[in-house]
Amino acid sequence: MTSKQTLGVGMVGYAFMGQAHSQAWRTLNAAFDVPYAIDMAAICGRTEEKVRAAAEKYGWRSYETNWQALIERDDIGLIDICSPGGNHAEVAIAALNAGKHVLCEKPLANTVEEAREMVKAAEAAAANGVRAMVGFNYRRVPAAAFARKLVQEGKLGAIRHIRAVYLQDWIVDPEFPLVWRLRKEEAGSGALGDIGSHIVDLTQWITGQKIVGVSGLTETFIKERPLVADTQGLRGTGSSERGEVTVDDAALFVARLSGGAVATYEATRFATGRKNGLRIELNGEKGSLVFDLERLNELELYLTEDDNTTQGFRRILITEAEHPYMAAWWPAGHIIGWEHTFTHEAYDLVTAIAEGTDPSPTFAEGLQVQMVLDAVLKSAESGSSWVPVESPTG
Amino acid sequence: MTSKQTLGVGMVGYAFMGQAHSQAWRTLNAAFDVPYAIDMAAICGRTEEKVRAAAEKYGWRSYETNWQALIERDDIGLIDICSPGGNHAEVAIAALNAGKHVLCEKPLANTVEEAREMVKAAEAAAANGVRAMVGFNYRRVPAAAFARKLVQEGKLGAIRHIRAVYLQDWIVDPEFPLVWRLRKEEAGSGALGDIGSHIVDLTQWITGQKIVGVSGLTETFIKERPLVADTQGLRGTGSSERGEVTVDDAALFVARLSGGAVATYEATRFATGRKNGLRIELNGEKGSLVFDLERLNELELYLTEDDNTTQGFRRILITEAEHPYMAAWWPAGHIIGWEHTFTHEAYDLVTAIAEGTDPSPTFAEGLQVQMVLDAVLKSAESGSSWVPVESPTG
Amino acid sequence: MTSKQTLGVGMVGYAFMGQAHSQAWRTLNAAFDVPYAIDMAAICGRTEEKVRAAAEKYGWRSYETNWQALIERDDIGLIDICSPGGNHAEVAIAALNAGKHVLCEKPLANTVEEAREMVKAAEAAAANGVRAMVGFNYRRVPAAAFARKLVQEGKLGAIRHIRAVYLQDWIVDPEFPLVWRLRKEEAGSGALGDIGSHIVDLTQWITGQKIVGVSGLTETFIKERPLVADTQGLRGTGSSERGEVTVDDAALFVARLSGGAVATYEATRFATGRKNGLRIELNGEKGSLVFDLERLNELELYLTEDDNTTQGFRRILITEAEHPYMAAWWPAGHIIGWEHTFTHEAYDLVTAIAEGTDPSPTFAEGLQVQMVLDAVLKSAESGSSWVPVESPTG
Amino acid sequence: MTSKQTLGVGMVGYAFMGQAHSQAWRTLNAAFDVPYAIDMAAICGRTEEKVRAAAEKYGWRSYETNWQALIERDDIGLIDICSPGGNHAEVAIAALNAGKHVLCEKPLANTVEEAREMVKAAEAAAANGVRAMVGFNYRRVPAAAFARKLVQEGKLGAIRHIRAVYLQDWIVDPEFPLVWRLRKEEAGSGALGDIGSHIVDLTQWITGQKIVGVSGLTETFIKERPLVADTQGLRGTGSSERGEVTVDDAALFVARLSGGAVATYEATRFATGRKNGLRIELNGEKGSLVFDLERLNELELYLTEDDNTTQGFRRILITEAEHPYMAAWWPAGHIIGWEHTFTHEAYDLVTAIAEGTDPSPTFAEGLQVQMVLDAVLKSAESGSSWVPVESPTG
Repeated sequence: MTSKQTLGVGMVGYAFMGQAHSQAWRTLNAAFDVPYAIDMAAICGRTEEKVRAAAEKYGWRSYETNWQALIERDDIGLIDICSPGGNHAEVAIAALNAGKHVLCEKPLANTVEEAREMVKAAEAAAANGVRAMVGFNYRRVPAAAFARKLVQEGKLGAIRHIRAVYLQDWIVDPEFPLVWRLRKEEAGSGALGDIGSHIVDLTQWITGQKIVGVSGLTETFIKERPLVADTQGLRGTGSSERGEVTVDDAALFVARLSGGAVATYEATRFATGRKNGLRIELNGEKGSLVFDLERLNELELYLTEDDNTTQGFRRILITEAEHPYMAAWWPAGHIIGWEHTFTHEAYDLVTAIAEGTDPSPTFAEGLQVQMVLDAVLKSAESGSSWVPVESPTG
Repeated sequence: MTSKQTLGVGMVGYAFMGQAHSQAWRTLNAAFDVPYAIDMAAICGRTEEKVRAAAEKYGWRSYETNWQALIERDDIGLIDICSPGGNHAEVAIAALNAGKHVLCEKPLANTVEEAREMVKAAEAAAANGVRAMVGFNYRRVPAAAFARKLVQEGKLGAIRHIRAVYLQDWIVDPEFPLVWRLRKEEAGSGALGDIGSHIVDLTQWITGQKIVGVSGLTETFIKERPLVADTQGLRGTGSSERGEVTVDDAALFVARLSGGAVATYEATRFATGRKNGLRIELNGEKGSLVFDLERLNELELYLTEDDNTTQGFRRILITEAEHPYMAAWWPAGHIIGWEHTFTHEAYDLVTAIAEGTDPSPTFAEGLQVQMVLDAVLKSAESGSSWVPVESPTG
Repeated sequence: MTSKQTLGVGMVGYAFMGQAHSQAWRTLNAAFDVPYAIDMAAICGRTEEKVRAAAEKYGWRSYETNWQALIERDDIGLIDICSPGGNHAEVAIAALNAGKHVLCEKPLANTVEEAREMVKAAEAAAANGVRAMVGFNYRRVPAAAFARKLVQEGKLGAIRHIRAVYLQDWIVDPEFPLVWRLRKEEAGSGALGDIGSHIVDLTQWITGQKIVGVSGLTETFIKERPLVADTQGLRGTGSSERGEVTVDDAALFVARLSGGAVATYEATRFATGRKNGLRIELNGEKGSLVFDLERLNELELYLTEDDNTTQGFRRILITEAEHPYMAAWWPAGHIIGWEHTFTHEAYDLVTAIAEGTDPSPTFAEGLQVQMVLDAVLKSAESGSSWVPVESPTG
Repeated sequence: MTSKQTLGVGMVGYAFMGQAHSQAWRTLNAAFDVPYAIDMAAICGRTEEKVRAAAEKYGWRSYETNWQALIERDDIGLIDICSPGGNHAEVAIAALNAGKHVLCEKPLANTVEEAREMVKAAEAAAANGVRAMVGFNYRRVPAAAFARKLVQEGKLGAIRHIRAVYLQDWIVDPEFPLVWRLRKEEAGSGALGDIGSHIVDLTQWITGQKIVGVSGLTETFIKERPLVADTQGLRGTGSSERGEVTVDDAALFVARLSGGAVATYEATRFATGRKNGLRIELNGEKGSLVFDLERLNELELYLTEDDNTTQGFRRILITEAEHPYMAAWWPAGHIIGWEHTFTHEAYDLVTAIAEGTDPSPTFAEGLQVQMVLDAVLKSAESGSSWVPVESPTG
């Protein structure tokens, strides 16, 4: 019925992130006025039986069992990389070189070196109108986007303090098995890379300030865990054999930012009772704001512009049509879920492709986050000394 | 790829509820293990241009412009009625008589008489394996379903107190226009029928007690509002001509329930600052619980079984795989949105159809809610006297 | 050291309220610039041993064992009545007739008839410069006083909705004994008079509207309880003999107010988990506010004057020097306790005495509250019919 | 009337802390069963006119204008030091040497060297039954004391994470004047010493773990402020002349503790909107807890001992008679204020004196806190390097 140009999407990976991204591609057209007719062309995974089942369940019209085949297909214009960080660089660079737009899950790569190569490939591709974006989806939480808008408009004045934590508790049990996310060779790092990367990106993006130096520490509370045959899943079962946990359980650091703010950051998987506790508090000259991912439809805002007797942290329900992304959804007060961030991300990406602009966060932004995380690891390894963060373009 | 039997769905209406139900049908298969291959066969509306656009946007493969045609189609086995209450009875009865399963949005009908006819049709159809369900979707909020489970298991003991409000504020502005929801001939009643029906159904369902009598009042704060050419929309624009508001802006009542509980209920569209404020507090012999739709992923629970020094209202994040419906979605702490209730509703309905059982809430349950609302209106009209609620089967 | 005139205080009763009032009189001078030198002259109770101990513990310089003696003392200018409601009328009228100022705990009396006599005595005394005040101390919570100020200034516009509850749970256990507060002959009524009176007074005072009619019900969940030798205490011990509970456990009603607001009220001692849960929500044309006694240093305020995207319920810490009463205490953020309300009450009373003005709430205001409670009981006794509330001056 | 031995108290200082301590001494007997008859003997300050007024207002029966005279008085057995930190050492050592018990406000001293001398004096005095205590009053918040009890009983298991902030905002305005608290020579340090000391002490006390090393930074956002004639007050007025701010506005650090916990700490006076925001979150193997001084009557507690579906942070109202200190006050749900901590502190001190035991926190504990703060300053001065904390006992 439509006369829109078709954009075929091919997705790599079908686990947790694959399910979430599928939901986004399936929903995109119904929520937003999208510049392309989205074709969920193919999903790609190594095990045929599983990838076929995933294709059927999540609504992809075909499947592939190796990513090279996916990239070669003419009916696919965009590669969505949802696999673990270890093969991001290889897939993303090949796709970009083949002229496919790329959406790559965070962290951009497991090492700064790989990330640098990806940035080069993205910059080369951009010259040909091919776009690349890294999936820091929390920028697409309406409350976070609105927070950035408030800071940019100067409602808070200069930001002096950042307090950012990402608290989870899914491995508090010492019998929780040694899944891939606890192995450095597959996951790159632990809490720091997995969830610390989100708070580094999000606070920098909201405040418009970059981290210039850090001092911190990391800790692995449980050094050995039961081995599992299949290390792919998040939930495993006990085993009598044990293997070494080679990533951090928690990372904590203080930082200074380019605009004069000082900050504390903490990422941990040992915060008993906190399930998805990404919380950010910013204090500025003229106001403050608080965001909590477990209540992502809300933003707390304090403004000194009111008279002294009626100032207070106001809990704003970020569900008005005038709030970022929310005109696409339901009447005020009808909350959205975590998964909607991926629909927003997909919308921003395809809009940028259509408009011929670079989508944000770029691979260069992803690299800069990696460099911050790298500095934190260096500080931790050197006994919590101060480590400056270089500029990615430097 | 699948060998499942196909279930064709035909939907009547494409406004707010139509968008939400479309999202449910589109998402159902990806989230749950559904017994049918769902075919979004056709959407139906009076204005061809609009219904065609809705079909394309929301993912329906065809459209119809009159509901009789929809019912006659062989490729459709289930009629989903999302139009205003005024034509529920006509459509639902025709569909049931034609052997189509029916999902009917609440309120079941605009009058008790119509609702009675619908119950008769549903009971006749059930004898032939045709199913009917009324869309009190808030039963499918995981926190609400979990609340019911806690009460059923006796965790709270006998329920003594119910405190239920549904607070909105979308017509506080006196210049908000006279949309169809403010006209008795189309909407049946105002806040009472639209949102009061939800709290009546939800509290009865969670507690397992039925309202046996009420005493209350209704109020229309703004008696006249600007006329609008198109009264279909929720958001209108000003006009110099005015018409009479013929429904209640607010309804308040006290009640007694079959299990000995006493209750206060309130539904209003004049609670400035409350957007979708459905809140329920239950107090029982052994514990209490609090639910708030604006934070629908949470449930507050108080239990006296703990020792005196550590009792408190605990805020439970209802996002564990062990919570109702939640195994279908994301890891703990990754919240869902308001719209997910419709996916859960669709899942329960098609499961009941497959299993050959009556889905709940039945039309008889919908009728009973209508009879409670009717008693409230009678009480209000008679100067807040006590009005017993008859049994629908009585 | 001072040249201030001395005001001798004599207090009747030394239980819960007596302890709280003692704290107020002892603290008054240190917190406020008081027009009199307060002399804690004497405390009065029937049992000499106990009243002597109370005098020493709470800082009274002498004691009496009958209230007539207290009233006759020349060194006492103010009688503070903290005994149960049954003897309020007798003591207060005698004191006023003897030319003593009176502070009388709420409820003013156990019957409307007694309250009327007290009003007459107070009005006669006022002609001679003798003052009378009823102790609705929650008017002296800074957040409540500030709420009233906001309403009076028109910040919320016309008030449309009042939602008021006073929730406690101290008799949920069926083995809790039959203390005096559960006996009509001593306490007058149950939850309605004890705590319902507070929310009736407070909402009327904050909104400036009077309740004009009610429809409601009462309930006694536990009909019989263990007898105790001493029924004076709040905490008793089990016994094999049982007696009848002759007051309500809970009272619920809807109401209309003089300014057009509609309201729900509820007072109960069976709200498991709620310890001192006095909560009030007001919705006005231009804003809303929420107060919760368990967090009495806070007020939630919603204003529509802000732009649509930043409106929200703001949590104001009512601890600024510019907030009512708070200049007397600590720097911002250093919270005060429940007992401070009595110090504020005492301050307002002695200030009114010094200035020769009538302190509020007057006995006439106390009578009006009694008449509302009386109407609720009449409604409950007549099967929840509508009962208008007469004017006390009518 | 009593036969108790009298304990005469002499207090140095009559500003903010003096007012709070006066309230404690005046209230002590009425709330607790105190082993002495407390005599508020004398208050001491340099300006006769002011100290005389303070004596009258706060209820001291005499005054002195130099602290040496206070110490020499035979009717005084306890010296309560509420003056700024600069003269703590001199007064406390003299008092202890004169055989007077000492309560000394925190921080113990402005330098570690002075604190060491005070510890020596206290240890010598203790041999003669003379007691010394440092005033970390927040240990006497019932919720904090209860938190310690829960940790000691093992309810949380081993503590892995500490997150502690003390957030205020009283100098966010750059025109706020250069009061004594912003001058190193009088205040010793800024936010770190004034409020950071509280969170260091409180977290160590609750967890039973000591900080063994830190890495951090400090910041002074506003380098110059208006001079004021009188630098004693907290609130000043503008001036055209400016002077240098010589203390930190904010201090942030990461730490490791003796029991294996890792921590972030932050103290700042630039957290716009936070008035007295002392917040602590602890995560342990088996549970977590959260404390917030702005809601000091509450404690949030999470326990994994419950089944997975009903775990949640429970908000416990710490107002039961079974909670620490609370049997002295009001029925459950009737909250206490910030000032009550001083009454509890005084009670614990005089009880220890009567029992002949060392009250906690001892001067040695105060010294250890100073050494932690000193390490933070050293880390900050050395570019955020890691600085181990020595043991005070060497």
